[in-house]
Amino acid sequence: MTKPNTVRRVTRIEEAARIFYQSLNSKRLDTESLPTQDCLGRVLAADIVAPADIPSADQSAVDGYAVLAKDTFSASPGNPALLRLSSSGSVFDTILKDGEALYVYTGSPIPQGADAVVMIEFTEKTDLGSIEVCKAVAPGEDVSWKGEDVKKDETVLRDGTRLQPQDLGMLAAMGYQLIQVYRKPLVGILATGSELAPLGSEKRRGQVTDVNSIILSAMVTHHGGTPLRLGSVEDDLQQIKSRIMKGLEKCDLLIISGGTSEGQADLTVKAIDSLGKPGVVVHGIAMRPGRPTALASLHGKPIINLSGYPVAAMIGFYVFGKPLLSKMLRTTDEPWPCVRARATRRIASSSGLRSHVRVAVSRRGGELVADPVRSTGSGIISSMTKANGLVVIPEDVEGVDENEEVDVFLFRPLEQKRGKGA
Amino acid sequence: MTKPNTVRRVTRIEEAARIFYQSLNSKRLDTESLPTQDCLGRVLAADIVAPADIPSADQSAVDGYAVLAKDTFSASPGNPALLRLSSSGSVFDTILKDGEALYVYTGSPIPQGADAVVMIEFTEKTDLGSIEVCKAVAPGEDVSWKGEDVKKDETVLRDGTRLQPQDLGMLAAMGYQLIQVYRKPLVGILATGSELAPLGSEKRRGQVTDVNSIILSAMVTHHGGTPLRLGSVEDDLQQIKSRIMKGLEKCDLLIISGGTSEGQADLTVKAIDSLGKPGVVVHGIAMRPGRPTALASLHGKPIINLSGYPVAAMIGFYVFGKPLLSKMLRTTDEPWPCVRARATRRIASSSGLRSHVRVAVSRRGGELVADPVRSTGSGIISSMTKANGLVVIPEDVEGVDENEEVDVFLFRPLEQKRGKGA
Repeated sequence: MTKPNTVRRVTRIEEAARIFYQSLNSKRLDTESLPTQDCLGRVLAADIVAPADIPSADQSAVDGYAVLAKDTFSASPGNPALLRLSSSGSVFDTILKDGEALYVYTGSPIPQGADAVVMIEFTEKTDLGSIEVCKAVAPGEDVSWKGEDVKKDETVLRDGTRLQPQDLGMLAAMGYQLIQVYRKPLVGILATGSELAPLGSEKRRGQVTDVNSIILSAMVTHHGGTPLRLGSVEDDLQQIKSRIMKGLEKCDLLIISGGTSEGQADLTVKAIDSLGKPGVVVHGIAMRPGRPTALASLHGKPIINLSGYPVAAMIGFYVFGKPLLSKMLRTTDEPWPCVRARATRRIASSSGLRSHVRVAVSRRGGELVADPVRSTGSGIISSMTKANGLVVIPEDVEGVDENEEVDVFLFRPLEQKRGKGA
Repeated sequence: MTKPNTVRRVTRIEEAARIFYQSLNSKRLDTESLPTQDCLGRVLAADIVAPADIPSADQSAVDGYAVLAKDTFSASPGNPALLRLSSSGSVFDTILKDGEALYVYTGSPIPQGADAVVMIEFTEKTDLGSIEVCKAVAPGEDVSWKGEDVKKDETVLRDGTRLQPQDLGMLAAMGYQLIQVYRKPLVGILATGSELAPLGSEKRRGQVTDVNSIILSAMVTHHGGTPLRLGSVEDDLQQIKSRIMKGLEKCDLLIISGGTSEGQADLTVKAIDSLGKPGVVVHGIAMRPGRPTALASLHGKPIINLSGYPVAAMIGFYVFGKPLLSKMLRTTDEPWPCVRARATRRIASSSGLRSHVRVAVSRRGGELVADPVRSTGSGIISSMTKANGLVVIPEDVEGVDENEEVDVFLFRPLEQKRGKGA
């Protein structure tokens, strides 16, 4: 008779990811061309090179007067320098001479001859077409030089950049109206389990709502993919095989929940393995929850077979799905907010497995405390809705002591209003 | 002649926000009803109460055999307990008797009489319609009790919760198909400045692309609002007034960039003040960049007048726009990833102002270092595209020393590929 620890050999998370990635083809996602303002959160599919200098000419960084710095060197509030206002009109036609000043606004070019700008606050107009300057400015002061922001031919943003508001601004400043980005990966979401019924359907006795498809679709959306909900399938090898085949045809990645455990006779794993090579490359991960997670590849396309338990499926997605989406998009995972907090009680963990513990972090006195959310298992969704963070306990650490400080990855604000149980 | 520090009285950020919020009406945003799966990131507009217990009956938390715990008390690998398989078929009709076991899968109800479940891994089928159990289980072991996840009439999620994937799963598990959420605030984005031209237009000499509208629209989208781009307007009091009026009619919040500084003769501020009471309630904030930011209210609707400099406009949005959107949605600001890093060089800051310094954080040796991004001013957008984080230096701290450890709020991953200048 088997012992619990030898039930299934487990592979460490990093090793599992390495084996998984090696089994996949490295085909680049197609790209698409979108208007700049529609590219928020999308990933650049090419390096972006500046077509021209920005600024395109030496320009004022403030509202004030363009001057020759040397004319102000002796200026002070008690002894202002008197400068004539240049009369030649447009800044484009002006050549500033000794003792002259010309009004410039922020971003306007400075006239030839000028080498500094005095902020308007440090000047006063006199009645005689002159200004008084009460501050010495150094050459270059409050001037943005040609090319200071970006230089012509400079690579400003690189292939693989997840575009943020300021990036869109920069692309616009360079005049780019259409941007080449990677197509969002299309991610098929399939749930296995004869007991599952879609939300809103009439349920027979013993049937429950398929919540995994809803949770995983939302996670895919949140992390840059397009979910394609494939519904649920009964615990039947032939049906599962046929649904996997159909899903893989359409999708760049297939995420299946359920059918990973011994009790379900590893149905999904068997179905994948019967469909081609290499099939399942890792089954059983040194993590908790989510130990029965399987990683597979068919025709070079990735399949992630997550646990049927909603919480274990979520953790499995964080561990393997989110990084894979980033990898497919040739970008880097987003940083995750993390705080230090003191554990309110001992947290047990299993040696050899990386544990992901749901905690509710709150302020108590002057410090943050992390209260593990009690639950009997990873089927209890409320453990994720009551929690606002995850404590990750490494494989070689045996639990966390009461009052020990831990890193908590936050997925909600500390002060978020939550259910009473939190 | 005025001195730089007295140019404009400044108000501390928290005090400015307090005055601003007080001037606004507290009208609740309208709500709308959406299918559960479309509610990711939306904010709940009502408390959610569980219509029934989940689980709806005592159920198995694993795949295995429902048993009477006492029948297993003496079981061990060397001395397994022999239990008869119950022959009565469906779990719903079974009443488990002493010495009996019934196969149950995860999530299926346990039969009457049973009080524990043995995982399948700890059992072995014999030929005689019996199983051997090699482990003692305690009463309640691997059973999820009726109502353990949520109890009927329990408030599970509260008004103001920003819905995450697991929340959608929980709502689905409770059978909710339509969810009442707040309408996204409609945010008008207006840029002032005669030199501005929209992206893609033919430019006259001296004209530059209006990048603020693109940046701010993206920020609004990212933080839960719907941007309405109102274009740009010339530095003309009457035109600005008319555009503000039109914008306010349609929008829940108006964000205007530019026209805040003395050089522009405070045109936007004057326009707002001429349109009604209270008008501008704060002008001049103890922050850098973004000191000339103005906060206003007309007919109870908020107006945020940001600097015309793109970087200062972004910082102003982080400081006032993002929290206001959360407040309008009656939710809490999302947590922001933060790391500790060592400053690579001294960072100067102005006493009395809260400074927001762009830095590029990277790993050097075993630690994180924060390298301030050099720039001559807040017109230099590349200082935001080259940076991956912000260091916030409080009003009463005079700069950061070289090698001093600082908190950095990350807005990009550490390893994100960036332009060469980073």
